[in-house]
Amino acid sequence: MSHGAGGKASRRLVEGLFAPLLLSSGSSERLADAAHIEIGGATVAFTTDSFVVRPLRFPGGSIGELAVNGTVNDLAVSGAKAHSMVVTFVLEEGLASSVLEAEVRAMSDALKRAGVTMVGGDTKVVERGKADGMYITTAGIGSPIPGVHVDARTVRPGDKVLLSGPIGDHGITILLARADLDLEADLYSDTRSVLPMIEALAAQAAPGIRWMRDPTRGGLATSLNELARDCGLSVELNEEEIPMRDEVRGACELLGLDPLHIANEGQFVAIVSPEFADIALNAIQLTDGGDEARIIGQIRNEPANTVVVNTRYGGTRIVDMLVGDPLPRIC
Amino acid sequence: MSHGAGGKASRRLVEGLFAPLLLSSGSSERLADAAHIEIGGATVAFTTDSFVVRPLRFPGGSIGELAVNGTVNDLAVSGAKAHSMVVTFVLEEGLASSVLEAEVRAMSDALKRAGVTMVGGDTKVVERGKADGMYITTAGIGSPIPGVHVDARTVRPGDKVLLSGPIGDHGITILLARADLDLEADLYSDTRSVLPMIEALAAQAAPGIRWMRDPTRGGLATSLNELARDCGLSVELNEEEIPMRDEVRGACELLGLDPLHIANEGQFVAIVSPEFADIALNAIQLTDGGDEARIIGQIRNEPANTVVVNTRYGGTRIVDMLVGDPLPRIC
Repeated sequence: MSHGAGGKASRRLVEGLFAPLLLSSGSSERLADAAHIEIGGATVAFTTDSFVVRPLRFPGGSIGELAVNGTVNDLAVSGAKAHSMVVTFVLEEGLASSVLEAEVRAMSDALKRAGVTMVGGDTKVVERGKADGMYITTAGIGSPIPGVHVDARTVRPGDKVLLSGPIGDHGITILLARADLDLEADLYSDTRSVLPMIEALAAQAAPGIRWMRDPTRGGLATSLNELARDCGLSVELNEEEIPMRDEVRGACELLGLDPLHIANEGQFVAIVSPEFADIALNAIQLTDGGDEARIIGQIRNEPANTVVVNTRYGGTRIVDMLVGDPLPRIC
Repeated sequence: MSHGAGGKASRRLVEGLFAPLLLSSGSSERLADAAHIEIGGATVAFTTDSFVVRPLRFPGGSIGELAVNGTVNDLAVSGAKAHSMVVTFVLEEGLASSVLEAEVRAMSDALKRAGVTMVGGDTKVVERGKADGMYITTAGIGSPIPGVHVDARTVRPGDKVLLSGPIGDHGITILLARADLDLEADLYSDTRSVLPMIEALAAQAAPGIRWMRDPTRGGLATSLNELARDCGLSVELNEEEIPMRDEVRGACELLGLDPLHIANEGQFVAIVSPEFADIALNAIQLTDGGDEARIIGQIRNEPANTVVVNTRYGGTRIVDMLVGDPLPRIC
């Protein structure tokens, strides 16, 4: 299961098998969010994701909404505005048509909110016991947001780490929604399009944007470890600046989970040059849903390839990528 | 299961639920193969398909090869040349890594043969019993082939029906590969890219091409019934002109299946204006793998919205779309 968790085992699978055999560049970096390619004289961003979240519906969202927002967000953090999408459903025989219809409606609503057009799709049905209700795959294409260039190699010491809002809401919501845990909390998935925040950021601070990512599976720690590795620098986080709801903190303490490893579906992290940091933060905070954005850290030279957290008690700790899978099928 | 079979129930699902809620146009026609959209000043064709074929490997191909060729072909019959692709895997926990690697290699080989670049992807892992080995979804973008316009509304009485080669190889191969049938034949899936044939056709006869489709799930009869409905005319086939291997004919007779309903994964059917019909046939026949192409019928005014077959015994029969699902998970 850990090969699908978005952490170390996933990265090994990508680097060891998929990238060398499948990717033109032979580089795993291109698998990150969305590829920007030249076609017919235009630059088009292109991405895909499969969604296998369990349960299909959870507080604050559902698989259909997730499938639209996830692809919009992958495009957004690559510096592109989603334009069109295609979708496939793998349905388990016997799935109630009302369940399918609810997800199609959820997708329709999310598409409208994101201003994206669905242009095609496919449906397959497999026998009972060969899927879990439904799996949805979306692929999206988009156009580059002018002036935005996302590239880990442009990150420099002194750059700031900007986070769009509280972490862990999605992962902990899913955890609590699973019948096998006897915990309750007033918590909702953060699933949403981050495009409005990124467009506001770009409008005010495009030249200052070095790198962006939506910290989904594997959480903030995994995204930032990938960045640290790709830029060869250190990402230093200030724990007490990282926004987090009490419910998330409490559940993580109870269950022995690191909130930095918990999945998010409506947040993004950006590395911004120091002179643009305040403008960038302000731009996001002034956008609907961005008021909890914070600068949570900075880039250092040392220790290279590493994410370090300055704890609230004055110490420091190194945070690795996610290892293993504390919570399968989170998205 | 019939909702995934590509026939009448699939069409009802698309027309009743997906098209009105999800598709911008509200029209199911756009779901057919690939959408052609304007983005960044370019026209880009965009398509997706999920693959759930069982078994994963079969004589002549495997799920990975199918996933690449299927998307290349969907673009090709829409009048576009595949440029880039993205892929997602839904893997069942416990799948042998050698099985996954074999499919990644099969995809890599098919990509090279098709001259297409893989630019990104995603992997999800689900628990044992929640998938069947692996499901693969590909999405592809491509550029229009100059001068080719595929539109059922341009089809006219007198147009010719051109088929690229023998029908039924893929479906019957899968049928025989299933352990539950005690039949054997020297038969192989026809999975391949049809792009070289379509490029040759376009080079010689682009102005004569009215419509194209790859008759996969639901077979030639379903594709041509969709055409008959979309153009409001009659598609008349001459049974003895339809190329078919003896093994396919024999298996269909034995099992009570209509070969016109059997899936193909390496053929296409084109409607060509009469003055270009011979040039078009010749162009395909001179292409590698196209020597068995035939003109198999013509378009008539009546009976409208219907596919009629002139049988080898001098009679005629009406062939409907596939109803039900004689062979689930064919692709």
